[in-house]
Amino acid sequence: MMVNSLGRELPEKVGSYIVRPYGSEAVETAVTVRTNRTAGTRSNGGSKLLGSIVAALEACGLQSGMTISFHHSFREGDLVVGQVMAAIRELGIHDLRFAPSAVVNLSNFSLAEYVRDGTITRIEASGIRGELGDSLIDGSIRMEEPAILRPHGARPRAIEMGELAIDVAFIAVSASDEYGNSTGQIGTNICGSLGYSFIDARSARKVVAITDTLVDYPCCPASISQQYVDYVVKVDKVGDSGKIGAGAARLTKNPRDLTIAQRVAEIIAASRRFQEGFSFQTGAGAISIACTKFLSEQMERRGVTASFALGGITSGIIDMYDAGQVRVVECSQSFDARAAGAIYSRPGVREIDNADYANAYSKGNFLDHLNFGVLGALEVDTDFNVNLLTGSSGRMMGGLGGGPDVAEGADISIVTLPIVRGRTPSVVRRVFTCCTPGETVACVVTQAGIALNPHHRHYGELREDLERAGIKPVTIQELQQLAEEITGVPEPIRTTDRVVAVVEYRDGSVVDVIRETVF
Amino acid sequence: MMVNSLGRELPEKVGSYIVRPYGSEAVETAVTVRTNRTAGTRSNGGSKLLGSIVAALEACGLQSGMTISFHHSFREGDLVVGQVMAAIRELGIHDLRFAPSAVVNLSNFSLAEYVRDGTITRIEASGIRGELGDSLIDGSIRMEEPAILRPHGARPRAIEMGELAIDVAFIAVSASDEYGNSTGQIGTNICGSLGYSFIDARSARKVVAITDTLVDYPCCPASISQQYVDYVVKVDKVGDSGKIGAGAARLTKNPRDLTIAQRVAEIIAASRRFQEGFSFQTGAGAISIACTKFLSEQMERRGVTASFALGGITSGIIDMYDAGQVRVVECSQSFDARAAGAIYSRPGVREIDNADYANAYSKGNFLDHLNFGVLGALEVDTDFNVNLLTGSSGRMMGGLGGGPDVAEGADISIVTLPIVRGRTPSVVRRVFTCCTPGETVACVVTQAGIALNPHHRHYGELREDLERAGIKPVTIQELQQLAEEITGVPEPIRTTDRVVAVVEYRDGSVVDVIRETVF
Repeated sequence: MMVNSLGRELPEKVGSYIVRPYGSEAVETAVTVRTNRTAGTRSNGGSKLLGSIVAALEACGLQSGMTISFHHSFREGDLVVGQVMAAIRELGIHDLRFAPSAVVNLSNFSLAEYVRDGTITRIEASGIRGELGDSLIDGSIRMEEPAILRPHGARPRAIEMGELAIDVAFIAVSASDEYGNSTGQIGTNICGSLGYSFIDARSARKVVAITDTLVDYPCCPASISQQYVDYVVKVDKVGDSGKIGAGAARLTKNPRDLTIAQRVAEIIAASRRFQEGFSFQTGAGAISIACTKFLSEQMERRGVTASFALGGITSGIIDMYDAGQVRVVECSQSFDARAAGAIYSRPGVREIDNADYANAYSKGNFLDHLNFGVLGALEVDTDFNVNLLTGSSGRMMGGLGGGPDVAEGADISIVTLPIVRGRTPSVVRRVFTCCTPGETVACVVTQAGIALNPHHRHYGELREDLERAGIKPVTIQELQQLAEEITGVPEPIRTTDRVVAVVEYRDGSVVDVIRETVF
Repeated sequence: MMVNSLGRELPEKVGSYIVRPYGSEAVETAVTVRTNRTAGTRSNGGSKLLGSIVAALEACGLQSGMTISFHHSFREGDLVVGQVMAAIRELGIHDLRFAPSAVVNLSNFSLAEYVRDGTITRIEASGIRGELGDSLIDGSIRMEEPAILRPHGARPRAIEMGELAIDVAFIAVSASDEYGNSTGQIGTNICGSLGYSFIDARSARKVVAITDTLVDYPCCPASISQQYVDYVVKVDKVGDSGKIGAGAARLTKNPRDLTIAQRVAEIIAASRRFQEGFSFQTGAGAISIACTKFLSEQMERRGVTASFALGGITSGIIDMYDAGQVRVVECSQSFDARAAGAIYSRPGVREIDNADYANAYSKGNFLDHLNFGVLGALEVDTDFNVNLLTGSSGRMMGGLGGGPDVAEGADISIVTLPIVRGRTPSVVRRVFTCCTPGETVACVVTQAGIALNPHHRHYGELREDLERAGIKPVTIQELQQLAEEITGVPEPIRTTDRVVAVVEYRDGSVVDVIRETVF
């Protein structure tokens, strides 16, 4: 057993996975970018359209033991993962490594069943929300290898460094021509940015574009190019645009969330970095959407405009672009139908590669230049460590998303959460699963107060700025005690020694592991 | 000595270059895409701006024997190649492989001098126009290794297959931010599409963006992403937008060129492929610009619109887009300032990767779907072989460009040229240098008549279509004889056995070689 610099106990090895503890000597190894894509085979101009997903699987030569990938831009509206997995089962292919950008709750099919029956034996994603995640944690499903959970920026790093080599990428697209030029921006069921899939398209050995809308050649816009696509399959429906939002698109009426959002906007406005040309990422979810609105109001009041807004984009950001408040919208994901449709017609609303968004192990990414990042959390502890994955009962409640990337990348990273949720404290002594190292979190905002992290690199600056603005922070310990007073001390979650998932950081080191829980 | 299927005599080896003759058994070897780019090194968010090109060379670790690359989108207005070469000489670096997308005539500096003094000892490009090319042919400059001339589509193939591994790519951009997001579309001196550089950006070990216009972060549009750029250098001027045109932008008044252009438009309009949603590439140059205009008129008359226009784009094509005559403009190069500026504001005018345009050894490219391709030529022979490189005197007069790619890709490839130029015949018994295999040329159009190639795959169809339209072709032999009657039989060019350049085809096989000429 080892202990990393965050105080998390880690085994040296889980299955065949060798643990490199977070905070140990940084091993920067420049390796030549790895890819599974091949060159040297002649294209022929013929249609790449195949009659079924089964036909595409056969054409790709998908075999047991291989690695497959998907994007999660349709979120809970995705209808492609289910169709592909059913076809794979039909062919009797098993022992797959399932490596989507994220696993989300899909009401239409049970991923857990595919693990139970051995179709999938390895999982790598930014999160495994839903039945499967819960089953892994409670031990009702067991895999020999741990699930590898990576934040968004770490996935392209792992792919380019050869740690995650994809055999077949299945890319759900809202429109495609028969030669594979495809997009998420037009068609019947749009998801907007396909930024998560760019790395898959250029790196996978075989790429299948799956669409419900075939368009005349050439598809325009074309986010994914014909030079990367092997086959195109038309299905009845790829997804439901109405469900791409991570949260409600309408402004919340919850006074608690409004209070938190208002405080965040005040902190941003108080910062010396809130000046002409600043940049921000507010994200999705109720607090984020309200926060975008309050931020917009602060900007108007102060006559300040932003150089760019980043990440998952909502229609509130598009409004700001249209009003001239944001010069460029760098969109790695679209969080509502209006944001999804905004890329095509607006030259300053750009669909960006997820690697360009968040991969810290490239020559540069947008997070390197982000001033303010607003982040959600399930739990935060008195060391400012953030839990994005597991709920109070030990269930799998979320995904890493870009959380750890944004926290470290942004100058001022602001973690927002209610101080308690029902009878569960959100500010605790020690998070159950550490996902984002506390040292990368500048402040925590709850309805009961704001806590600044004295160990953050911009602590002095932020404290000064808030003081000048008359904003009085509390300590994180005060918030924790307040939460505990409301809820009482929660029963500790008991776990076995069996590790079911490793939580990787941006650099591939291990921040924490998730163990089987005893309920 | 070998003879390839086009009857060209080839040595088995030139320097260390091993000749694979065109038309021999196609060796399709799927290899994993090669790249020199590295992953695994942490980006730091700091400025990538360096004070000088010399500083960038040192930071990149450029050393003697390495390979450097440039794009040629500024054409004869380029000011970056000269500045970089001067800095390289200043550092005493030598024995470089110079591998731009093309070498064009640059009035501002002499590339030949850099070969003479050993700074450059190997050259790979689509052409080596100007003093250097001439000096190689007349033997006044000699290199141990042959120049490797590749059509545009073959360059990304060679890079991805590892035949051309780039150490440092220097990318001239009209605007960049300090972190390397850069473009050719905005700034003081724009060149428009940077499509030739995309492969360099993602494949080179080090990438230097050179600009005269630094913009606030993030640069938008951003054709080249920060994730691919190591350093940014600001110079006084990167190029002259007024010189990016390959030919005059105004409509020619030359009756010969107008006749040829008119005939081309008539052939296209006569074809059964001239129907709603057809596609075309007309190119630049006097005949091409006139041809675009006449084609537009034919389309209006017949009520036909095009799905896409491809390749090097002129303002005439932008007019057609604006008028709704062309749905998508797939722009790999911009041939005038208006076309260069058209990408940003028009969602259907797209800046495309040159690999996406023309690389036949990927999963697909736009040429696979092109109906009509209009091409220029220096000479064509009675086997329809086309010479794009060497003039009648044995001088280096042109570059391969996308000629061989478009000829093979387009359903109907139309080679245009005057029947004689001065006292030199353009239609000859045997071209001096074979660049485009005759079997890929559908027809030749001169002011004196149209010749169809009986060995082209669509010969029967085209003959029928022209007949229906009342267009009467002549034979290529008739054109050749007519030319000869006008000019007399030219003296044959005498050469030594010394090969100075190999002419590669799309697949890397050798179509022809260029030998030293005895003047």
